[in-house]
Amino acid sequence: MSGVYKKIDVVGTSPVSFAEATRAAIEEAGRTVRHMSWFEVAEQRGAIKDGKVAEFQVTLRIGFKLE
Amino acid sequence: MSGVYKKIDVVGTSPVSFAEATRAAIEEAGRTVRHMSWFEVAEQRGAIKDGKVAEFQVTLRIGFKLE
Amino acid sequence: MSGVYKKIDVVGTSPVSFAEATRAAIEEAGRTVRHMSWFEVAEQRGAIKDGKVAEFQVTLRIGFKLE
Amino acid sequence: MSGVYKKIDVVGTSPVSFAEATRAAIEEAGRTVRHMSWFEVAEQRGAIKDGKVAEFQVTLRIGFKLE
Amino acid sequence: MSGVYKKIDVVGTSPVSFAEATRAAIEEAGRTVRHMSWFEVAEQRGAIKDGKVAEFQVTLRIGFKLE
Amino acid sequence: MSGVYKKIDVVGTSPVSFAEATRAAIEEAGRTVRHMSWFEVAEQRGAIKDGKVAEFQVTLRIGFKLE
Amino acid sequence: MSGVYKKIDVVGTSPVSFAEATRAAIEEAGRTVRHMSWFEVAEQRGAIKDGKVAEFQVTLRIGFKLE
Amino acid sequence: MSGVYKKIDVVGTSPVSFAEATRAAIEEAGRTVRHMSWFEVAEQRGAIKDGKVAEFQVTLRIGFKLE
Amino acid sequence: MSGVYKKIDVVGTSPVSFAEATRAAIEEAGRTVRHMSWFEVAEQRGAIKDGKVAEFQVTLRIGFKLE
Amino acid sequence: MSGVYKKIDVVGTSPVSFAEATRAAIEEAGRTVRHMSWFEVAEQRGAIKDGKVAEFQVTLRIGFKLE
Amino acid sequence: MSGVYKKIDVVGTSPVSFAEATRAAIEEAGRTVRHMSWFEVAEQRGAIKDGKVAEFQVTLRIGFKLE
Amino acid sequence: MSGVYKKIDVVGTSPVSFAEATRAAIEEAGRTVRHMSWFEVAEQRGAIKDGKVAEFQVTLRIGFKLE
Repeated sequence: MSGVYKKIDVVGTSPVSFAEATRAAIEEAGRTVRHMSWFEVAEQRGAIKDGKVAEFQVTLRIGFKLE
Repeated sequence: MSGVYKKIDVVGTSPVSFAEATRAAIEEAGRTVRHMSWFEVAEQRGAIKDGKVAEFQVTLRIGFKLE
Repeated sequence: MSGVYKKIDVVGTSPVSFAEATRAAIEEAGRTVRHMSWFEVAEQRGAIKDGKVAEFQVTLRIGFKLE
Repeated sequence: MSGVYKKIDVVGTSPVSFAEATRAAIEEAGRTVRHMSWFEVAEQRGAIKDGKVAEFQVTLRIGFKLE
Repeated sequence: MSGVYKKIDVVGTSPVSFAEATRAAIEEAGRTVRHMSWFEVAEQRGAIKDGKVAEFQVTLRIGFKLE
Repeated sequence: MSGVYKKIDVVGTSPVSFAEATRAAIEEAGRTVRHMSWFEVAEQRGAIKDGKVAEFQVTLRIGFKLE
Repeated sequence: MSGVYKKIDVVGTSPVSFAEATRAAIEEAGRTVRHMSWFEVAEQRGAIKDGKVAEFQVTLRIGFKLE
Repeated sequence: MSGVYKKIDVVGTSPVSFAEATRAAIEEAGRTVRHMSWFEVAEQRGAIKDGKVAEFQVTLRIGFKLE
Repeated sequence: MSGVYKKIDVVGTSPVSFAEATRAAIEEAGRTVRHMSWFEVAEQRGAIKDGKVAEFQVTLRIGFKLE
Repeated sequence: MSGVYKKIDVVGTSPVSFAEATRAAIEEAGRTVRHMSWFEVAEQRGAIKDGKVAEFQVTLRIGFKLE
Repeated sequence: MSGVYKKIDVVGTSPVSFAEATRAAIEEAGRTVRHMSWFEVAEQRGAIKDGKVAEFQVTLRIGFKLE
Repeated sequence: MSGVYKKIDVVGTSPVSFAEATRAAIEEAGRTVRHMSWFEVAEQRGAIKDGKVAEFQVTLRIGFKLE
């Protein structure tokens, strides 16, 4: 990969799935961070309401290149 | 969140996906446990049959409020 | 389960989802390994391109019976 | 210690301190569980409101003897 | 395995061996839990008295099917 | 919780207690970060001087909402 | 030890004990692998049937020299 | 810090708090060890008696300079 | 348990079993350490010779009271 | 150390060694971060090309004082 | 990266340094494995003789593409 | 290896490299400990000064035979 990278932890949430929560986290991060290169799933959790999954929450470690 | 909570470990299974296994675990737990508030994914495994995924298994740590 | 088993680490990739990456890993492994019995998810990562998830990567630990 | 024990996970909360959250968890658990013998601190978290600690949350693993 | 399972933590003790402690834990758990299916060894400890092993203690995570 | 969150690691220090170190970390973080929502204790250490605790150091993982 | 080694994961099973499961794993591995040098216990699990231990399962990481 | 250090594990106990248990451990260690420089909290446990916390137990990893 | 304790890491070995290796470690430690109170199994390994287990090695963390 | 610190994760890369990758990460981080005080090695990886190490990659957790 | 990969554990040794041990492991692995793509450092150990480092040992997890 | 061993934690430091810090730790330990047999790298950290690595710090777990 060459160069120097930074990793940040971002938590995405979605009422639908962990996949959607993952996409939400990366899209939101992309609004302020450029050159994102990879992500690692660090944690998967969720909220329950009325006996059903109300929200999927995924913590991603996102790596991006420093310019 | 205030109050005191208990966490229990429940394993859901599904032939379709981890998402379905997650929902199955929470629904089943909800038959005897009330006030479920959150879950944490502790482990993801599965069974293989004839070279294909036969079952998705997810261990959830479910938190619920004690009354 | 009885008998002796071996575990190997296989990384599946997919542009669509972790579920697809899981299936890809097991199908590919099945081309050279017989009697696969279970898998454990060891790691979930992914590649990002142009601010979007470009690839889902899942490391599976696959157990199969030795004959 | 002799005999057989069970461990349960209980989360105590307090606006004051982790110590208070610990005591709250054990007192509440004691309402339904007898012969509690020891606890292990598994996790320490908390809630923040208006830039200040609003709640201390501690997950205890409590061991008690089965009769 | 299909269906939904619960996991509980049980600590068995024995003056003789970890094997005996394991059997003691499962037998005792079987008095109140039905459909036990598997166990995982989570921790192995022991007590020492007069410079000798006085007690073997093993923490098992026991999985059983919910009906 | 809905929305996207970021987690940052902050180390608070105090000559008095881990509780004070926790409050110091969150207050300081609050000077540049808004919408802080929760914290997780990641590490507890300290400095010793002349055979006594000279400083309590706590590493917090602080979660806050991205706007 | 000098030279280059490979590590493989092998799961041994036995109805009698973890010790027997360990020996079974190493003997079976020895049928195809030469120059085995050491093993590390990575995981201990087991199957339960009719409220009793039906099978001990041990995952070994076996190191052997590459020729 | 320069030089070579040793780390030892010391368990402090107190009927009052983890803070007191921490201080007790360091003071006692200081009776035989000189040049103690830092500590890391490795484990927090406790004893329960009559449904109340009877003792706080903290395992510290203490670093000190070798002369 | 009250008082202050120290923990040391001792590795026992035996050609027969982990149980024997455990006893060997504690007996040897008892020659220089008094007031041993408990042990924790930290690691289980072994040596292989001619395709068979040649030695069981167990690392114990032994706790003893400081006088 | 006194005061409040922040930790960030930086990945350095080098075709030569982990040492060079470490220095590269810290130098690059120093272009935007002041008062860096310590680092912790969190992960060591690398790229392989044509059967040889093509790149050393080290993830550092860098601590620096907040002003 | 696309496609399916396998990970194997290889231990390299060298009397000189971990860097040499890393290169030795990858070169040796390259004699039977093609398309090696990355490695992860899993463990660093060594042998001591006459009070000096006699051998550096590094366990690498090597990833390579399956054809 | 046969016999009983003890493991101690020693932290070596060096302004030059982790390799030098490793050698420093083992040499210093060898002044009071005999029959050192192996070491395990438990932690790698360092100090930063004026934006540069000022010191490499490595924690070794050193095993030696008890006579």
